[in-house]
Amino acid sequence: MTTTLNGNLLIGATSIPGTGPAIRAFNPATGEQVEPGFASATVADVARACTLAEQAFDTYRATAPDARATFLETIAQNIIDIGPELIERAMLESGLPQPRLEGERGRTVGQLRLFAKVIRDGHFLGAALDSALPERTPPRPDLRLRKIALGPVAVFGASNFPLAFSVAGGDTASALAAGCPVVVKAHEAHPGTSELVARAVQKAVASCGLPEGVFSLLHGDGRTIGQALVANPAIKAVGFTGSRQGGLALVRSAAQRDEPIPVYAEMSSVNPMFLLPEALAQGGAKIGTGFVDSLTLGAGQFCTNPGLVIALSGPALETFITAASTALQAKAGATMLTPGIHAAFNAGVAKLAAEPGVTPVARGLAGTTVHAGQAALFVTDAATFIANPKLEDEIFGAAALIVRCDDISQFHQLAEHIDGQLTASLFVTDTDKALAQALLPALERKAGRVLVNGFPTGVEVSHAMVHGGPFPATSDSRSTSVGAAAIDRFLRPVSYQDFPEWLLPTALKDENPLNLWRVRNGELAQS
Amino acid sequence: MTTTLNGNLLIGATSIPGTGPAIRAFNPATGEQVEPGFASATVADVARACTLAEQAFDTYRATAPDARATFLETIAQNIIDIGPELIERAMLESGLPQPRLEGERGRTVGQLRLFAKVIRDGHFLGAALDSALPERTPPRPDLRLRKIALGPVAVFGASNFPLAFSVAGGDTASALAAGCPVVVKAHEAHPGTSELVARAVQKAVASCGLPEGVFSLLHGDGRTIGQALVANPAIKAVGFTGSRQGGLALVRSAAQRDEPIPVYAEMSSVNPMFLLPEALAQGGAKIGTGFVDSLTLGAGQFCTNPGLVIALSGPALETFITAASTALQAKAGATMLTPGIHAAFNAGVAKLAAEPGVTPVARGLAGTTVHAGQAALFVTDAATFIANPKLEDEIFGAAALIVRCDDISQFHQLAEHIDGQLTASLFVTDTDKALAQALLPALERKAGRVLVNGFPTGVEVSHAMVHGGPFPATSDSRSTSVGAAAIDRFLRPVSYQDFPEWLLPTALKDENPLNLWRVRNGELAQS
Repeated sequence: MTTTLNGNLLIGATSIPGTGPAIRAFNPATGEQVEPGFASATVADVARACTLAEQAFDTYRATAPDARATFLETIAQNIIDIGPELIERAMLESGLPQPRLEGERGRTVGQLRLFAKVIRDGHFLGAALDSALPERTPPRPDLRLRKIALGPVAVFGASNFPLAFSVAGGDTASALAAGCPVVVKAHEAHPGTSELVARAVQKAVASCGLPEGVFSLLHGDGRTIGQALVANPAIKAVGFTGSRQGGLALVRSAAQRDEPIPVYAEMSSVNPMFLLPEALAQGGAKIGTGFVDSLTLGAGQFCTNPGLVIALSGPALETFITAASTALQAKAGATMLTPGIHAAFNAGVAKLAAEPGVTPVARGLAGTTVHAGQAALFVTDAATFIANPKLEDEIFGAAALIVRCDDISQFHQLAEHIDGQLTASLFVTDTDKALAQALLPALERKAGRVLVNGFPTGVEVSHAMVHGGPFPATSDSRSTSVGAAAIDRFLRPVSYQDFPEWLLPTALKDENPLNLWRVRNGELAQS
Repeated sequence: MTTTLNGNLLIGATSIPGTGPAIRAFNPATGEQVEPGFASATVADVARACTLAEQAFDTYRATAPDARATFLETIAQNIIDIGPELIERAMLESGLPQPRLEGERGRTVGQLRLFAKVIRDGHFLGAALDSALPERTPPRPDLRLRKIALGPVAVFGASNFPLAFSVAGGDTASALAAGCPVVVKAHEAHPGTSELVARAVQKAVASCGLPEGVFSLLHGDGRTIGQALVANPAIKAVGFTGSRQGGLALVRSAAQRDEPIPVYAEMSSVNPMFLLPEALAQGGAKIGTGFVDSLTLGAGQFCTNPGLVIALSGPALETFITAASTALQAKAGATMLTPGIHAAFNAGVAKLAAEPGVTPVARGLAGTTVHAGQAALFVTDAATFIANPKLEDEIFGAAALIVRCDDISQFHQLAEHIDGQLTASLFVTDTDKALAQALLPALERKAGRVLVNGFPTGVEVSHAMVHGGPFPATSDSRSTSVGAAAIDRFLRPVSYQDFPEWLLPTALKDENPLNLWRVRNGELAQS
């Protein structure tokens, strides 16, 4: 393949070489560096991108719904139009297989189109109108509310989804949908994929006649360029997907600003699966193989990877463990995303194996590439798990811990003991009804999504999805980073009092020109 | 009047004397201490209240909408039933006049009833249902979303509204409506008013058969008891109204927890009024007297008090200044809330008077009580204002600064220069149309509420009200502390995947038993 990459920074409408140290991707399958170099931005480049974003903000947020929706659809089409080069480059930089990346491209494009629909629906505006009551004592003024965009947003892509959680991923799509310009700090593991997608966005900005500052892409390391971006006064919110350490560093930086800003960091989760007794007795072997398929998907590099299994001791659990072990031992190690992630996975597995009371039960096959992760399964008991907080640390990759409970009361203890999670899964039959109902309140408190008889790795992009959850799964449980509700993260309400018709925002005019659902004097109506 | 106050802490269902140092209210009209003493809580009392709140949480949040709405209505009725003792005690502790406090009681009760309606409507649940698509590749699971309560909330009442922003004020009402138990730290300036209202809430908890931990009241100082409350792991959010210093201290404490939590601190705002040229020419004198009425309302002790006036130099502005000065000079000083607030007001006025380029133009009459605040009006020019950030510091009380602009471009400069605000007001005629439209985008970015031809001091409790705004007006611009949308602060979304009917929350069942508006496969419908 002939690459068209030039390694430039995309700041507003420009494409210019950076002047900082060059970043090069690694091919994780071979451990070799990949050309070209992507020279880092300077702090001055960060400032320029932020200033352009600030200058673009009022014009961009004032775009008509259809214009903004068309912009997102244009980005989607431009991404499709890149063609095979995008998939090939993403394969090279991530080690992920072609069908997975083609699926991820479809998801990314579908996400942009979902937000186009969200914009056209306008439900996110939360429009509300209270009529004036001049005769009341005291008189009530005319009040109208809509939500407006927060301001320019800094987006930090994730390593594990180089398309769907990166340059034009969920954070960018939802921020642009809300009316926020976006400055992306490209992930160092896939700078070429980032450039290709960023060019698709930049092209859409131009062809839709939007101000150039609506989008910029910067290369550079998190410590200098990332922190400078979060510290810039023009930036009003941050979207991040990655490690707990990385997320917390951004939370701290944002808190140190003169004006604190929200940071939506999606961080770590071990996604517990609770196998209830009758479900385990009836389906132990089947659940065991399904679990291993979910655990090893994409080399286990999913935020929603099931890393913790909780079940009652006994023959049914042994059947599950045997089936899971057999399945796992047949799984070939898959190439992990970066040498660093692979090294951290091996270290995490070794550390877990060395903890007292933790027994290894199975390993997967070695892989054929230099950075293949060899899946690992461990077992411990509830008392040991509760006594040792290290056993709940996420190992990013295909490693899981099974916790044997002595009795049902330990299910409840564990449900209360675990940290905040992106997901929690319940495996149940009708016979497990009482226990499932008793466990649910704790799981709702602990997780953003609760599943029944399913594995958590699939994250649907739809209206009812929540990809979020209590700390430390995220830094802000009040939101989701996937699905239609993700737009809510980048909005704030503004109230308009006694506005003449000529000054009212279109969404709030009497005749409802956008045909919105609005709360009028307390009642929801499409008028 | 014979007081029924006992000075106790109300922890869950108990009423027990504190064992810490006693707090006594001051009568700000006389400067004398008022009996009884309210002995402070200990850190152990804080922990007990928080544990009870945690224990009550799952039961309370699972109450049916009608039960929770009835609870809020019962609180409202119990507050009414206290009768004249409540108004008399609040007068004694705040120095505010009887009609104002009777109005405030009406507002407080109306707010509780509004949230009862909000609960019954159920729109705040954000219910969404996406049907399973088993034939799709990959299959889509059944997904359903609703919002649930965050957890126990710590509420810090404000000095300036001893009823509407205190024990059963907006923060408490919205948190209880969301399904969150509440622990209130009583404001030290009105402990007796706090006890009376807290007993009304405690009685409602009992008569509605709710778990006792749904509500507790603690006395004590902010530094030890307040900080212990915010640091308690059971607390999941904080509501606060008060000074910037106090709010930022809570923000810092919350950020230092193992699990960071949202802090909704409503802090300082100078609520600029922009007088556009034609509006000023036509109505300068009338706007001037209206402005002074708003400025001196409640001794100027409103969060939305108009402390900054921006207008073009010239004869029309001089007319405004003359009218405002004349009105101000006739205003008798009114008793301020506490000796500390009175002292801070005097210090702020003296400091502003001493700033270079600031000219005093009028003072109000002295008051007849020891802690009466004497209104004050100053003038400066735009260049001086922009060069000296101290001129934007809020003076809590009836003091305002008029900024003379040389030209229209300075209107824009000032709109960009000012800090985040609760409100911004535009005085306009049709002739000012172009300028008003040009200024609006900046004002939307700076304020939670924008008014036309009105004064900001009235804060309606309704669906379209926003009492919030960008930092430093609040610590979190994504919300409001007044009006129906205040409930959103205490919620987080949870997604339910492939749930059997018997495990689904009532709000998400197929047959829609609560008759909610829900987003079904992307379309809003009452089904």
